[in-house]
Amino acid sequence: MKLVIVIVQDDVALDLIDSLTESGYRVTKLATTGGFLKSGNTTLLIGVEKEKLEEVLAILKEECKTRKQVVTSPSPVAGSTGVYVPYPVEIEIGGATVFVLDVDQHLKI
Amino acid sequence: MKLVIVIVQDDVALDLIDSLTESGYRVTKLATTGGFLKSGNTTLLIGVEKEKLEEVLAILKEECKTRKQVVTSPSPVAGSTGVYVPYPVEIEIGGATVFVLDVDQHLKI
Amino acid sequence: MKLVIVIVQDDVALDLIDSLTESGYRVTKLATTGGFLKSGNTTLLIGVEKEKLEEVLAILKEECKTRKQVVTSPSPVAGSTGVYVPYPVEIEIGGATVFVLDVDQHLKI
Ligand code: NI
Ligand code: NI
Ligand code: NI
Repeated sequence: MKLVIVIVQDDVALDLIDSLTESGYRVTKLATTGGFLKSGNTTLLIGVEKEKLEEVLAILKEECKTRKQVVTSPSPVAGSTGVYVPYPVEIEIGGATVFVLDVDQHLKI
Repeated sequence: MKLVIVIVQDDVALDLIDSLTESGYRVTKLATTGGFLKSGNTTLLIGVEKEKLEEVLAILKEECKTRKQVVTSPSPVAGSTGVYVPYPVEIEIGGATVFVLDVDQHLKI
Repeated sequence: MKLVIVIVQDDVALDLIDSLTESGYRVTKLATTGGFLKSGNTTLLIGVEKEKLEEVLAILKEECKTRKQVVTSPSPVAGSTGVYVPYPVEIEIGGATVFVLDVDQHLKI
């Protein structure tokens, strides 16, 4: 068995957990602050049999791939009329750091 | 040395930590949300010398074994008189997921 | 690659994270309660290439070494006049428990 430790941005974590759970994997979510990428990260633990590891890594690659997202600017800039005008900005989301560890023994009690 | 990672229900965690501490083991409790069993789980880290591993696993099996517990229903049902009557229900508590990892190096600073 | 798990007192963690980050290491901070030393501990995860492990351990030894610190007593004792008089006390801070684990695979997505 392998233990997969995944560090992802909080806003990617929920979709990732859904996707892993739907595929039958059990995920433990650790509260995390700060981190490898920027603040607002989540650490997940996933125990997986060796023969399923590639499938889990494929899900991680799909769900965590870096992509651009258009969001409405959270701090809108004042227009010439003095009225605050929200405007769309493109940000990058996704990315993950993954460690796969060998499990010496595992048991379900 | 081995690193034992244990995921248990929150309501089992305190007794388990007591029991491990009384037996001389040091336990680190990580805040956890969601998880392998159902929501409200706790993840524990226990560093243990190889020759003590069986003792730690025996404590885990004893403290985390699944058992039935009678609790008073938290959402009482209205009786025929319109009065809410709490009633006992049997729930299952316990269970744990355990990963034992090899430790390459360990040090106390 | 190695995964270094460090458990330190909260009041040492921030300086340690600064020091590791300035040296170019990425650190993930897990929320921790209770623990190996006394309550108020933080668990850090640091992924590090084998050839950098000694440098990371040297930073840990430097930042986490046990030392005495003079603090003003947080619960001042009443003097003979009935006035509460804060007074300096010497406490021991620092200390860390470190586990180094082999990483079977690691990836950045
Ligand atoms: Ni197995
Ligand atoms: Ni040892
Ligand atoms: Ni590497």
